[in-house]
Amino acid sequence: MSSKSPLLEHLYRFFESGLLVTYKDLRDYLATLEEAGLLFVIERPIVKETELMPLVRLQFRGLQESDRKGFLFKNVIDVTGKRYDAEVCVGVLSASLDVYSVGLECKPDISSINEKWARAIQSPVPPVEVQNGPVHEVVVEGSDLERDGLNRLPIPVELPGYSCQIRTTTAFITKDVETGVQNAGTYSGQIFGPRKILWEIHRGSDGFTHLRKAAERGMLLDAAIVIGGPPYVQYAAAAKLPYGLDEFAVAGGLAGTPIEVVRCKTVDLLVPAYSEIVIEGKVIPTEYEPQPPFGEYTGYMAVGVESQLCPVMEVTAITMRRRPIFQTIISQMPPSESSKMRQVAFGGVYTAFLRDKCNIRGVKRVVFHEASGSWQLCVIQLEKNHPLDSWSALYHAASYAADIGKLFIAVDTDIDPADPDSVIWALSFRMQPHRDIQIVKGKVSHLDPSATPPGGEKNESGFREVSAILIDATMKWPYPPTSLPKKEYMERALQIWREVGLPELKLKEPWYGYNLGAWTEEYELFARLITMGKHYEVGKQLEKRRTTMRSGFGGSIGMQG
Amino acid sequence: MSSKSPLLEHLYRFFESGLLVTYKDLRDYLATLEEAGLLFVIERPIVKETELMPLVRLQFRGLQESDRKGFLFKNVIDVTGKRYDAEVCVGVLSASLDVYSVGLECKPDISSINEKWARAIQSPVPPVEVQNGPVHEVVVEGSDLERDGLNRLPIPVELPGYSCQIRTTTAFITKDVETGVQNAGTYSGQIFGPRKILWEIHRGSDGFTHLRKAAERGMLLDAAIVIGGPPYVQYAAAAKLPYGLDEFAVAGGLAGTPIEVVRCKTVDLLVPAYSEIVIEGKVIPTEYEPQPPFGEYTGYMAVGVESQLCPVMEVTAITMRRRPIFQTIISQMPPSESSKMRQVAFGGVYTAFLRDKCNIRGVKRVVFHEASGSWQLCVIQLEKNHPLDSWSALYHAASYAADIGKLFIAVDTDIDPADPDSVIWALSFRMQPHRDIQIVKGKVSHLDPSATPPGGEKNESGFREVSAILIDATMKWPYPPTSLPKKEYMERALQIWREVGLPELKLKEPWYGYNLGAWTEEYELFARLITMGKHYEVGKQLEKRRTTMRSGFGGSIGMQG
Repeated sequence: MSSKSPLLEHLYRFFESGLLVTYKDLRDYLATLEEAGLLFVIERPIVKETELMPLVRLQFRGLQESDRKGFLFKNVIDVTGKRYDAEVCVGVLSASLDVYSVGLECKPDISSINEKWARAIQSPVPPVEVQNGPVHEVVVEGSDLERDGLNRLPIPVELPGYSCQIRTTTAFITKDVETGVQNAGTYSGQIFGPRKILWEIHRGSDGFTHLRKAAERGMLLDAAIVIGGPPYVQYAAAAKLPYGLDEFAVAGGLAGTPIEVVRCKTVDLLVPAYSEIVIEGKVIPTEYEPQPPFGEYTGYMAVGVESQLCPVMEVTAITMRRRPIFQTIISQMPPSESSKMRQVAFGGVYTAFLRDKCNIRGVKRVVFHEASGSWQLCVIQLEKNHPLDSWSALYHAASYAADIGKLFIAVDTDIDPADPDSVIWALSFRMQPHRDIQIVKGKVSHLDPSATPPGGEKNESGFREVSAILIDATMKWPYPPTSLPKKEYMERALQIWREVGLPELKLKEPWYGYNLGAWTEEYELFARLITMGKHYEVGKQLEKRRTTMRSGFGGSIGMQG
Repeated sequence: MSSKSPLLEHLYRFFESGLLVTYKDLRDYLATLEEAGLLFVIERPIVKETELMPLVRLQFRGLQESDRKGFLFKNVIDVTGKRYDAEVCVGVLSASLDVYSVGLECKPDISSINEKWARAIQSPVPPVEVQNGPVHEVVVEGSDLERDGLNRLPIPVELPGYSCQIRTTTAFITKDVETGVQNAGTYSGQIFGPRKILWEIHRGSDGFTHLRKAAERGMLLDAAIVIGGPPYVQYAAAAKLPYGLDEFAVAGGLAGTPIEVVRCKTVDLLVPAYSEIVIEGKVIPTEYEPQPPFGEYTGYMAVGVESQLCPVMEVTAITMRRRPIFQTIISQMPPSESSKMRQVAFGGVYTAFLRDKCNIRGVKRVVFHEASGSWQLCVIQLEKNHPLDSWSALYHAASYAADIGKLFIAVDTDIDPADPDSVIWALSFRMQPHRDIQIVKGKVSHLDPSATPPGGEKNESGFREVSAILIDATMKWPYPPTSLPKKEYMERALQIWREVGLPELKLKEPWYGYNLGAWTEEYELFARLITMGKHYEVGKQLEKRRTTMRSGFGGSIGMQG
C-alpha cells in the first residue's frame, strides 16, 4: 500500500520532455502505476458479486481526489467460492488526475492533456497487423464455449443489491460494412447467457450507424469486445472522435508508435495483439431484448428502461492471454472514474470551443463539477474584454449540446472554478439574481429524474424538454480590495509558519489581499501608516473632519464585520 | 504543537453529562484549550503590525475547519521592536466548532449548542458584585494615561497593507440611563489617539438606544470595553439577545454560576472581576468622526465608509491584570472566527424560526455556508409533509431578515446541507430552473459590492435594494434508488478496507444506496439474482420479452453511464 512515490515526479518530468514510456500492454502500465504509488494491490480473496466493487466505491466516497488510486485484485472468487485463473483491475484509467496523466503519459494539468489529445488527433499513427499475439494464447470456442461461456470471466457486480446486470465496459469494435473502416467505442456489453450479450447502443453513435448499415443489407454485424488493451486504445475508445477516424490510429498517435493488431479468430475484425481478453461475436440487427435497471452517472438507477431495447450479440469465441486481467471501470454515483474522464474531456472541449470557435479570447478554463456527474454544473472562468463577454460565454456554453448542462456560471480570473467554496463566494458577492440570472429553455435530458415523473411526459417531438440557469457572477465594476493582508505580509507569515513547525497547509485562493480597482492613494497612505504603528497620525487626519451634531446623530447604517 | 488530545473526548463526555468545568477566567480556559490540543502557542517574538494576524489568517486559508485552533502569542513586539508586558490571543472563541464547543462547554453539535443557549436565556443567573478583582491589579489614569495611553496595549493590525485602523473587538458595555440596565455588545472600538476611540455603532442596536437616550438628556454616556473576560461573557456579548436582557446574567446561565463583577474606577458600570483588561471612558453623543476603510466579512474592504460617522469616546482609565492577555477575534474574508460564530448562531435561529414559529415541522437543519460569509447562502434541509413545504420554508427564510441571504436552497433529508458537493448534486438532479426557481425583490444590502457601483445609487427610501434567488431542490416525486451498492455490501467492504490496511476514510453521505420510491419487486428480485451470480436466469426472463424488428430498430435514445 505504498503512497505516491518520488517516481511520479520523475515520470512527469519525463513526459514533459516529450519522451514516452510506451506501455506495450496493460501489465506494463499497471507495473508503472504500482511503482508510482498509484495502485492498490489486493492479494486476499475477494468475492466479485458482493465485495469487489463496494471496496473500490469506498475510495470515491471517502478519499480526496488526489489520494485515489487504481485497484488490482489478484485473487478473485465468485459467490460460491469458485476461483478464477484471472485477475481484475478497476479505476486504472482515471481514478484521479494523476492516474489519468500517467496513463496518457503527460503532465497532470488540463492544458498538457488537451495538447496531447490535439496532437494525437492531428497526427494519427495507423496500426500494423501482426500474425500472432498474446491475446490468442487461449482460444475458447465450440462446446467449450457452450458449456460455461462467459462465466469464465470474473465480471464483478457493480452495485450489489441494485444492479440487475453485469457488463463489459471497455472498447466495443465494429466496422462499417460499406467502407470497411473499424470503430472502437465504449459501449456496455450486458452478459445474460453463456453466449448472449445485449449491446447497449444508442442512436447517433458510430456503432449505431454500423448496425443500421448491416440491417439495411440483411447482414449480421461482426463485433469484438476488447478488454484490457494498452491504455492508449482505451482512452481513444472512450473519446468521442469524429466518425471515420480510426481509434486505433489515434491510440497510435497517443503512444507515438503503431498499435500492433491481430485478426480475430471467428469474425473479420482487427484487435490489439496485446489485449488481455477479446470476446468475438455477431450482432443480430433484427433481434432485441429489454434491459433491466442499471446504475447511472446521475447518482440514480436508470429504471423504466425496459422500453430501451438492445440488439442481441451471439458470442462465437473468447480469446485471451494466460491468466488474463479483466479490466473494468467504475461509474454511477459521482465522483467516479467516468465522471473524472468526462470532466477532463468536457473541460478541454468547452474551453477550446468558447475561446477558439466562439472567439471569446478571455476564456481561461471551463470546469464541470464531478458532483454534478461532470454534466450539470459548468463554471466558466474568463477575463472580460467586453462587459458582456460573460453572457456570450454563457449562451454559447449552454447551446453547445442540448443535453449537457443545467447550471452555467461565469466567474472572474481570481475565482477558482473547480473549488465550490470559491464559486459560492463569487455567487454571494458578485451577482444580483434579478439582474445577472437568466433561465432558458430548449434543453433536453434523457436521464435527469427531475425532468418528469417516472415514465412521465415527453413533448410532442418525443423528448423530455428541460431548462438551464445562466449566472453571470463576474464583477460589473471596480471592487474594493479583498479583505486579506497584502501579499508581502502573508509570504512573511508563511515563512514564520514553517519555522515554528505549524501543521502543513493546503492554501486556497485567494490567500492574500489584492486590489480590484476601488482604492485610493489616501487609503494606501493610511494603510501604510497603520503598519508603521502610526494610528495616532491617522487619527489626526480624522479629527480634521470631526462633526458636531446637537441631537446625537445615531451612527451609521452599516453592519458589523 | 500538540494535535487534538484524548482529553477532548473526555471533555465532551463530561459536558454531555451536564457537568461544567466553569472557567474562572480566560487563563483557565486557555489552559483547557491547550490541554485539549486546540491551541497553538507561539513563543517566538511576533510583530503585532505585520506578522501576527497574517499568521493566524494562514490557518483559515490553508487548514480544514476541523484542524483549526486558537492562537496564543507569548512574546509580542511592535514594528519598532518595543516589547509588551502582555500577551495576545486570537481565534480562541470559535476558530472551529471544537473550539466553540469547549468554550461553551457542550458537545460539538448544533442541537446541543442550541439547547445550551436556550437554557441560559430561559434561566439567567444574575452577576454578583465583589469589592476587588484581578482586573484592578494595574490602574492607568491621569498623566500616565495621557503619555502613552492606549499604545500600552499590543493591538494587532488585522490586514496589514489594507487595514486603516486598529481596534478592540470584544464586549462594549454601556447602560440605559433611564432604567440603569447594562448592555454588553460586540462593537469595534477604533483606536486613533492616546485617549481617543471611535465607537462603531449602528442604528437599531442596543448600544445605539443607550446613546440616543444619553443625547436626549444632554449627558455623556459611560462606557467600558471588556477585553478577555471569561468566555461566557464573550459569547453572550456576541449573541443578539433581546433588549433589556443582561448579557452578564445570560453568561452566568451559560457558566451555571454567577459572574463576579466589580465597579469601574472612573465610570458607573460593572465589569467582570476576572477580565484581563478594561478600557473605561465616556462617549460624547454630539461629537462624530469618519472612519477609514476596514475589512468586512464579505471578503472585501469596506470603502467609501467616510460617510459613516462614529461617536468619539474619551478614555478615562485603563485597568488590567498584571501581564494581561489582549484578546481579539479574526474576521474579514470568510471563513474566519466571525463567520463560524455567525454560522452556528444563524443556523440555530433559522431552524427554530422555521420549525417552531412558522410551524414547518419537517425542517431539520439550516446551514449558512461560511464561504458566503455565513450570510448569503442558506441551505434548508427538510422532510416535506406537504409538497409545498419547501416553498413555505424558502419564503419564510428569505423574509426573516431583509438584509440576510441571497441564495436560499431547500433540500431533502438525504442531502448534507453543509457539504457543497451534496448541494450541487441536489441542484443537478432534483430541480428544473424554469419550474423550481423564483427570484424575489425586497431585500436590502449594506455591504454587498454587487448591489451598486462604488458610491452608487440608493433607492428613494435611502437603502440599496437587492434580490434573492429561491431554489426548491427537493424531489417532486418518487425517485429511483441511488446508484450505489446496498448498505450491507458497503459495510462489508468497509470491514475488508480496514482489514487490508487501506488509507483512512472520511466517508461522505450518501455512501450506500437507498430506495427513493421508484423501484419494483421484480427489480428487487433481479438484483438479488445478480448478487447470487445468476445473471443467466435474469437473461431467461429477458428472452421471453425478445422482439424481432425487421428493419433494425436502432437502439435506445438513452445516454451512457
